[in-house]
Amino acid sequence: MFITFEGTEGAGKTTQIRHISEFLQNKGYHCVMTREPGSTKIGKKIRTILLDPDNNDMDSLTELLLYMADRVQHINKVVIPSLSEGKTVLCDRYSDATLVYQGFARGINIELIKKLHRLILDDLKPDMTFLLDLPPEIGLSRAWKQIENGIRTKLETRFEKETLAFHKKVREGYLALARLEPERFRIIDASVNENQVQREIIKNLSLFLFREL
Amino acid sequence: MFITFEGTEGAGKTTQIRHISEFLQNKGYHCVMTREPGSTKIGKKIRTILLDPDNNDMDSLTELLLYMADRVQHINKVVIPSLSEGKTVLCDRYSDATLVYQGFARGINIELIKKLHRLILDDLKPDMTFLLDLPPEIGLSRAWKQIENGIRTKLETRFEKETLAFHKKVREGYLALARLEPERFRIIDASVNENQVQREIIKNLSLFLFREL
Repeated sequence: MFITFEGTEGAGKTTQIRHISEFLQNKGYHCVMTREPGSTKIGKKIRTILLDPDNNDMDSLTELLLYMADRVQHINKVVIPSLSEGKTVLCDRYSDATLVYQGFARGINIELIKKLHRLILDDLKPDMTFLLDLPPEIGLSRAWKQIENGIRTKLETRFEKETLAFHKKVREGYLALARLEPERFRIIDASVNENQVQREIIKNLSLFLFREL
Repeated sequence: MFITFEGTEGAGKTTQIRHISEFLQNKGYHCVMTREPGSTKIGKKIRTILLDPDNNDMDSLTELLLYMADRVQHINKVVIPSLSEGKTVLCDRYSDATLVYQGFARGINIELIKKLHRLILDDLKPDMTFLLDLPPEIGLSRAWKQIENGIRTKLETRFEKETLAFHKKVREGYLALARLEPERFRIIDASVNENQVQREIIKNLSLFLFREL
């Protein structure tokens, strides 16, 4: 099973993936937690280029191709080998993020991104996608709270530094994709507390696994 | 004018581009010397990933996409702006290198590479391409001679470290492309000495420029 987690900045994906992995391991599933970009040795170097705020003159198509380069390395070296060993892959961001960030938010033609995906990755789709939905104002205020509390010192990535308008387009893009594929997507309200979010994901996941049996 | 220089390792492209740039500047042309990968700030970081011999588990498609990411940044930020200011761009490697290294030599489907190029770069073509042709045995022995003479210490890039069979495919690929587009390509024998190569390039270039007038 290939399960992806999507959402705007600060929606709590990383934390939730850790919880869900633990839950599934306890049920006897062998899980692999992974993320894009940066889950391979080469991907880590690509991630550094993508997130470094210093690279502010990056062309949108350069950004798109760097994400695709990271993805193909990740899919061919980590995801497909894990799936073929019968493992469950829990992945923090995948192709929906590209459609939303580079397509909806940066303005690259959505059909071009889809064509590229088909050309390079045979359109490998997740079995299930959790969209942790959150108004970007809340996500960004969580980041600011971390700064106030000394958990981190600044907004760190090129994406965190984008405008609120950009993050609103990201959220709208995700909701549009979820509406287009209701079978695959589960929209989870991520504005409530961590435990509630976790329960909601596990409820949906259990229904899905039960249906699969 | 957009003029590209192609060829196997050790064919002397860099030296020749410098000569040709000087020749054209003396004729009143404003030249920009550039190369792929690595002619932009972001491109330099991509180049490091591409050439580092430590990245030996790079998927061929990852390699292809990294070259394309470097290219789109280079074309949109350097080549197109220079051309639109009326400058002559002399470029060390461009799309033919991708067809040859990632297509002919690594085995990625040539049609896929061409589609990708059309999708991302509107198929921007050079006005003229010099292929500095050299049996790879000679090119590699030049590199070894530099090591013997202490000019450098080792074969440095992932590509220099490839097998002779790989470099033979590269040469054959280039010759095949040149045969397909005789209007654009000039095949230059790069096994003779530097001055002879230079004269041959200048002769061809002068004929081309004369024809354009």
